[in-house]
Amino acid sequence: MSDQPLFLRQDRFVHRHIGPTASDTSRMLQRIGVGSLDQLIDQTIPPAIRLQKPLALPSDETEVDYLQRARLIASMNTHTRSYIGMGYYGTITPTVILRNVLENPGWYTQYTPYQAEIAQGRLESLLNYQTMIIDLTGLEIANASLLDEATAAAEAMHLMHALAKAEQHSLFVDEHVFPQTLDVLRTRCDAIGVRIVVGSYTNTPLGAEFFGAIVQYPNSVGSIEDYTGFCAAAHANNILVCVVADLLSLCLLRPPGEFGADIAVGSSQRFGVPMGYGGPHAAYFATRDAYKRSIPGRIIGMSVDAQGNPALRMALQTREQHIKRDKATSNICTAQALLANMAAMYGVYHGPKGLTAIARRVHEMTNALAHALRSMGCTTQEFFFDTLTIGLPSTTNAAALRAKAEQHAINLRYDANGQVGISLDEQCDLSDLQGLIALFASAIGCAEGAIDAATKPAIPAALQRTSAFMSHPVFNRYHSETDMLRYLKSLENKDLSLVHSMIALGSCTMKLNATTEMIPVTWSEFGSLHPFAPQDQAKGYRQIFNELESALCAITGFDAVSLQPNAGAQGEYAGLLVIKAYHEAKGQGHRNVALIPASAHGTNPASAVMAGLKVVVVASDARGYVDMDDLHRKLEQHRTDLSCFMVTYPSTHGVFEENIQEICALIHEHGGLVYMDGANMNAQVGLTSPRMIGADVCHLNLHKTFCIPHGGGGPGMGPIGVTKELAPFLPGHAVVALGHEHATHAVSAAPWGSASILLISHAYISMMGADGLREATRYAILNANYIKARLAEHYDILYTGTNGNCAHEMIVDLRKFKAVGIEAEDVAKRLMDYGFHAPTVSFPVPGTLMIEPTESEPLAELDRFCDALISIRHEIAAVENGQADKTDNVLKNAPHTQSVICADEWNHSYTRQQAAFALPFVRHNKFWATVGRVNNTVGDRTLICACPPTSDYAEEAV
Amino acid sequence: MSDQPLFLRQDRFVHRHIGPTASDTSRMLQRIGVGSLDQLIDQTIPPAIRLQKPLALPSDETEVDYLQRARLIASMNTHTRSYIGMGYYGTITPTVILRNVLENPGWYTQYTPYQAEIAQGRLESLLNYQTMIIDLTGLEIANASLLDEATAAAEAMHLMHALAKAEQHSLFVDEHVFPQTLDVLRTRCDAIGVRIVVGSYTNTPLGAEFFGAIVQYPNSVGSIEDYTGFCAAAHANNILVCVVADLLSLCLLRPPGEFGADIAVGSSQRFGVPMGYGGPHAAYFATRDAYKRSIPGRIIGMSVDAQGNPALRMALQTREQHIKRDKATSNICTAQALLANMAAMYGVYHGPKGLTAIARRVHEMTNALAHALRSMGCTTQEFFFDTLTIGLPSTTNAAALRAKAEQHAINLRYDANGQVGISLDEQCDLSDLQGLIALFASAIGCAEGAIDAATKPAIPAALQRTSAFMSHPVFNRYHSETDMLRYLKSLENKDLSLVHSMIALGSCTMKLNATTEMIPVTWSEFGSLHPFAPQDQAKGYRQIFNELESALCAITGFDAVSLQPNAGAQGEYAGLLVIKAYHEAKGQGHRNVALIPASAHGTNPASAVMAGLKVVVVASDARGYVDMDDLHRKLEQHRTDLSCFMVTYPSTHGVFEENIQEICALIHEHGGLVYMDGANMNAQVGLTSPRMIGADVCHLNLHKTFCIPHGGGGPGMGPIGVTKELAPFLPGHAVVALGHEHATHAVSAAPWGSASILLISHAYISMMGADGLREATRYAILNANYIKARLAEHYDILYTGTNGNCAHEMIVDLRKFKAVGIEAEDVAKRLMDYGFHAPTVSFPVPGTLMIEPTESEPLAELDRFCDALISIRHEIAAVENGQADKTDNVLKNAPHTQSVICADEWNHSYTRQQAAFALPFVRHNKFWATVGRVNNTVGDRTLICACPPTSDYAEEAV
Repeated sequence: MSDQPLFLRQDRFVHRHIGPTASDTSRMLQRIGVGSLDQLIDQTIPPAIRLQKPLALPSDETEVDYLQRARLIASMNTHTRSYIGMGYYGTITPTVILRNVLENPGWYTQYTPYQAEIAQGRLESLLNYQTMIIDLTGLEIANASLLDEATAAAEAMHLMHALAKAEQHSLFVDEHVFPQTLDVLRTRCDAIGVRIVVGSYTNTPLGAEFFGAIVQYPNSVGSIEDYTGFCAAAHANNILVCVVADLLSLCLLRPPGEFGADIAVGSSQRFGVPMGYGGPHAAYFATRDAYKRSIPGRIIGMSVDAQGNPALRMALQTREQHIKRDKATSNICTAQALLANMAAMYGVYHGPKGLTAIARRVHEMTNALAHALRSMGCTTQEFFFDTLTIGLPSTTNAAALRAKAEQHAINLRYDANGQVGISLDEQCDLSDLQGLIALFASAIGCAEGAIDAATKPAIPAALQRTSAFMSHPVFNRYHSETDMLRYLKSLENKDLSLVHSMIALGSCTMKLNATTEMIPVTWSEFGSLHPFAPQDQAKGYRQIFNELESALCAITGFDAVSLQPNAGAQGEYAGLLVIKAYHEAKGQGHRNVALIPASAHGTNPASAVMAGLKVVVVASDARGYVDMDDLHRKLEQHRTDLSCFMVTYPSTHGVFEENIQEICALIHEHGGLVYMDGANMNAQVGLTSPRMIGADVCHLNLHKTFCIPHGGGGPGMGPIGVTKELAPFLPGHAVVALGHEHATHAVSAAPWGSASILLISHAYISMMGADGLREATRYAILNANYIKARLAEHYDILYTGTNGNCAHEMIVDLRKFKAVGIEAEDVAKRLMDYGFHAPTVSFPVPGTLMIEPTESEPLAELDRFCDALISIRHEIAAVENGQADKTDNVLKNAPHTQSVICADEWNHSYTRQQAAFALPFVRHNKFWATVGRVNNTVGDRTLICACPPTSDYAEEAV
Repeated sequence: MSDQPLFLRQDRFVHRHIGPTASDTSRMLQRIGVGSLDQLIDQTIPPAIRLQKPLALPSDETEVDYLQRARLIASMNTHTRSYIGMGYYGTITPTVILRNVLENPGWYTQYTPYQAEIAQGRLESLLNYQTMIIDLTGLEIANASLLDEATAAAEAMHLMHALAKAEQHSLFVDEHVFPQTLDVLRTRCDAIGVRIVVGSYTNTPLGAEFFGAIVQYPNSVGSIEDYTGFCAAAHANNILVCVVADLLSLCLLRPPGEFGADIAVGSSQRFGVPMGYGGPHAAYFATRDAYKRSIPGRIIGMSVDAQGNPALRMALQTREQHIKRDKATSNICTAQALLANMAAMYGVYHGPKGLTAIARRVHEMTNALAHALRSMGCTTQEFFFDTLTIGLPSTTNAAALRAKAEQHAINLRYDANGQVGISLDEQCDLSDLQGLIALFASAIGCAEGAIDAATKPAIPAALQRTSAFMSHPVFNRYHSETDMLRYLKSLENKDLSLVHSMIALGSCTMKLNATTEMIPVTWSEFGSLHPFAPQDQAKGYRQIFNELESALCAITGFDAVSLQPNAGAQGEYAGLLVIKAYHEAKGQGHRNVALIPASAHGTNPASAVMAGLKVVVVASDARGYVDMDDLHRKLEQHRTDLSCFMVTYPSTHGVFEENIQEICALIHEHGGLVYMDGANMNAQVGLTSPRMIGADVCHLNLHKTFCIPHGGGGPGMGPIGVTKELAPFLPGHAVVALGHEHATHAVSAAPWGSASILLISHAYISMMGADGLREATRYAILNANYIKARLAEHYDILYTGTNGNCAHEMIVDLRKFKAVGIEAEDVAKRLMDYGFHAPTVSFPVPGTLMIEPTESEPLAELDRFCDALISIRHEIAAVENGQADKTDNVLKNAPHTQSVICADEWNHSYTRQQAAFALPFVRHNKFWATVGRVNNTVGDRTLICACPPTSDYAEEAV
């Protein structure tokens, strides 16, 4: 230790992040039957792909040192007042929501609500979100959020396209749609051969070749246009219309659903979610009931539970497991649940009256500003909500104005014609108006126009909102902070999250989301920056990006990284587009086949289809490995049109296939590139790397491997790493120059995706350092193999490596219990009675559970989890040997709710104690499912995706 | 509204703080039977004492504006590195504790754990605290914290004095005890006629007149002295010894219990609690088993519940209700529970190894610094832990050094002899050492001494710690963040707090503790400032103090305020000392009688006794008012020796006595002053004032009326307001000049008490403004009278005003149910089954409940609470009319735990549903008591006040 600096703190973050202690480790190794952790790793990971050197990363920082440095980095961002608008607005996050949702692990460490019975809290909140969106847009159904406004518009395009006739291959996009939205639309349309026509909605004839049209409301220059006639004309030609609408404006404006829109999309950012230099925020998607089965993303719906009580669940999901691979129209499965919940809670806290007051005040200030500027010789459009496009007097030039503005730390929008855009928002007040008017007066050289509260709204009479919205009690009940706090807590307490117990989801790592990693995310220096602010105002973010990119390069072995994709699936898609662009640039544009192993994540084929590739499946062999014979066969067939091979490593079967390098070499020999799905990077970091196995591109699920929390179903981030040959083709952006030589169009609305949460991964990597990251991987493998060692005595474990080890996850085979009527789902639901969230159910193999404990879980928790599964095995045995009834048993009736267990009547063939407290540890920390097993059939039959009327609540309460 | 500024935000804080909406208000008034809120207030508060003008306060700020301004104020504090020490040290708060305890309403809105069954979480944490203190000090029993180190030393004096013989009237205090500790000791001793002798422990002969001695370890100049011989000598003379000890040092030093100390006290601030410019922090108090019945404050102990399971409770309490008025030796009832919990969790997170590593590193750095400085010609003492007293070379003067230090934003300690003190702490690192050495080198004009890791600790061999500590599993189990987070959450979820339901504690307001009020408290600009830093570095705090003092003057009508008292009882005590000093200054030092009404809070007589006053009780009449005849009688008797009258207004009976002005006038006529207990200020603010009713002094419970949260039993703040005649006598401070002309000695260790939480009250007042504060009072009265209107149909309400109204609280009389065996306690415990915390039980009248809902509770919650109490009334009726069994009924068996309700056996004469879900709303949000009714007798019989050995847990788990 003599080369170590003096007085190093012994409290290193790695010891806080990793669960097992040194003495635990010995016990675990003994149980596994290996002599050391080194030996376990050597047995598990093929030697040929082992990294020989530590990762080239700076040494680890303590938590306190990291936070100090983060403060300095934060201070490098310039504090300016943004009036740029363009989809990103200042907003006031109610502090009760900030602290009790965004800063509360009880909300941000929840998983996607697949296990509805222990997720009724966030399901209720997301139902509120859907109801709010339905009400504000005037449409009939809404989903539980999408990634951002631009991708939501792209999903609208996909939906409209999916419903189109063969001859309908063109999409009309109004010229006044935000440029970043158009950019993402181009990406998506180009890839699947849809032609985009951009023009003015007032004079572009829409012929039979069009399947859809997208317009914006208010439009990108702030004008409020009346699309009633346009919609009617489109419908007459069987063309669907999507309206991109500003959510706050809809408090005052006639909603899209009332003037003929088929779809409305947009952002809910300004409902209390900080700009965060681009994200994360929740986009919304609403449409007519007729299209409900085609909606992308997730929809929360009402159903009933086993006792007939109301229960919520995800009613429709375009999720990986459910995608019909050959029919995929979208790879979107990530929502922005945490941010949708924040926006919904903002709606709950303000209610319709409060929202209307906010919207009206923003509009009145804009109106006053317009009057003042006009009195000073400027022009503005006649109708607007919050955005003015200002023509300057001929004697004034925009460049001079801009220079003055930047001196005063004011950001405006400047267009190529010398016009200036100003968008006001909830944060503005009188002094801001005064500052703006002073700025213009000084630039123009005139007196300051007077500020008066205008008498008449600048909204066309026909487009003023007359319909009520958000009249449901939930939006009219929790307006005091006490009420709000209790509502938030009551929902939080219904949901199982990492604060209660491990969530051992195979392929969806749920490791520690450390507090220190989360802290900078809610600092205003990072939260209040507009993504299109001049880049020299974002030096702090630049520093974060640079460090993170170079760390991710070191970790993956690649040469360049794009931080733009704001979800894993988005990353996959971006990676494939890069491959496609590369082939095209080399004159190999005809290469359009993606080989995908049968075991791949469902998003892989979906992304390939979206990227315009043909999916060809490669079979698995009995060990779950890629079937080499089949691979050779398929390669031979696609020698000339092979674009790429998509592979997850270690495989979705939880095994490091030894021949991965051979496979990659074969692909390269056949002119293809290798796309590595980064879902299982958790098992690679510091021990091997995508580049080492032979990949050319991979995405990284920062929300898995690099500690961004799941947030109950989003946010996520899916940056991609590429070789230097592919670097010039990384995604660009329509508004912000990103510097890639042959940049493809954007995949996300914001240049660096959900920039603010990159801080989390940055913190994690900085505090772990090279050694810590490697230790994390080693312990992920140790923890998994420990569970395997314990469970293998009771269950069949599917697929292990040559040495009998699993990687960081394993598959427990439950298929043989079908003979006695026990399904994987029964085990999953029964785990709830023990206080655990089910592992991944029936993926990648139906009838199995895939368990991934992660390095963060302590031994005691691993043991409780194993104890529970072993106890369940005994319960299954009781069914097998006839001691327990085939239908009335603890598994089939799971989960057992409080009202079932506490009922006066008890008519089961087992006891209450067996049902609710089957092991002693459960008693000490009982977590109750708040509803019984949710009935999917009932929910599917009648889709109810908004808050039910109050009368239902009243009945329920009796 | 034409005079309002344009574009005011409609989202005013007052609407978030106050529960009922406008439409609720109408319904409530109707139920009460008054036409308007004005009418209700006019009926309730005597016209003669109504304020005629709005409070002279700045207009209210919105939350967002307040936070912006608070940021500016924060930035006025200078960021410096403090090496001042003197009981306040830099520390690193583990972020998992910071965010999930200090920033989490689930922890900070808990009440004092009087209702043990729904407080097992914080009771466990406080038991951990006691265990940690016992282990570190080597003593046998510890309490659950006291206010600060200085008052803890004063409490030690009281304990020793209480055990003394009549001729033992002197206290020895070593000269090397911190000056602020000595200052508070002087205050306390002077008041009760104890003589203090200050000298060196090595050469002051302790004769028969001494009852106790106080020494410090390490002492105030940082030396480690061996007190073994001193203790032995003292004991030989029947003198008890209290050692003030630094908690972190005890990881390395032989603990006081091992060298003969009878008592150890000190601060646990440096266990993860920010300095906060003086507080709040938890002081500790440990002693020998022999003195356990004399310990001040609260002690948590083990007992069993009704089912025989282990259960925690407050075993001993020196609380107001329990104080034998004539024997009070202490008015201390406030602990610093929230901070004690933080310190305990710091211990849990680091464990004995981690703490030792921290202590050792601090010591090694100090040692290295000492070596380097000595090599540069300085002198230091030989033995030390973290503090050096440095003699400069004769050519160097301290003033020059100081100037340079302040240039470099470094704060050192400078003594009158030109010596310089440096205390290192957990935050220090190598660069700090380098900075210090460079500073000294530059001042001395020499080369920088080398920094080496020293080989030999600078601790005398005989005083190195050899005994193990904190070996209990709880300190060795939760060292990963995942473990820690789950432990914190599991404890939090056992406890009922304001996040679950209302806590309607009469006389202990539990109103909203708004998030925005809490946010600045954890900003480092406020947290990291040392209380003895030069005042020009604390301009931000100065601004807060000035604004708060002037607001409190406006609210009380007084002329000056002292922010020093760090608890309500402390404020009472300080107020009485001011009165005493005033009389003395006027040559009326013989006035030593305090008249106190029978209905007064128990702290009133206790404080009076501590202040050296004689307590004379004035009777109450049938209405609960002061008995005027008796008052006249007592005044006549004490015409010459009357010091003051202590009165709570509105009275503890929840009534505005109409003759209050007459009473005060009478007191003044008889040469006395009026001390008003501010406990019920919640019912005065903006409508009347202490000055208006005729008081001369009052304290303000900022943790009640002004929104500082209860924190599970502290922190609190009890500033006092006084007339201009009394202002010169406000408390001073031994280290920091406070500018009062005839200042009394200090009552708290820090000059402005728990300065950092003053921010909370500052925020509240700023965001409410004059109108908002008045509305809060009006709604507090409305909410109380609404409850009264509903309950009066079912229960007898004791004491109402002339118009039949209560003030902000009411007393529900349960005494008649004794006839059928139902006690107030049964109702209190039964309320838990409905999800409610009991109101104040048996104060001020035995056999009653005193209910205070506060303005923050929404109507729906008031109704649920009334529904619960009315339902309980029906349950009592069932006992009365024989439908329910006299002993086996829902009241006697309350609370019903999960394990009782879910048991396979059910042998009660009522159903499980009746027991656990007596009303429909309970089902939706069931809160379970985690233990059954706690058996006090068992706990009293055998006092167990540390964590039990693990074997007990193991048994319990079976």
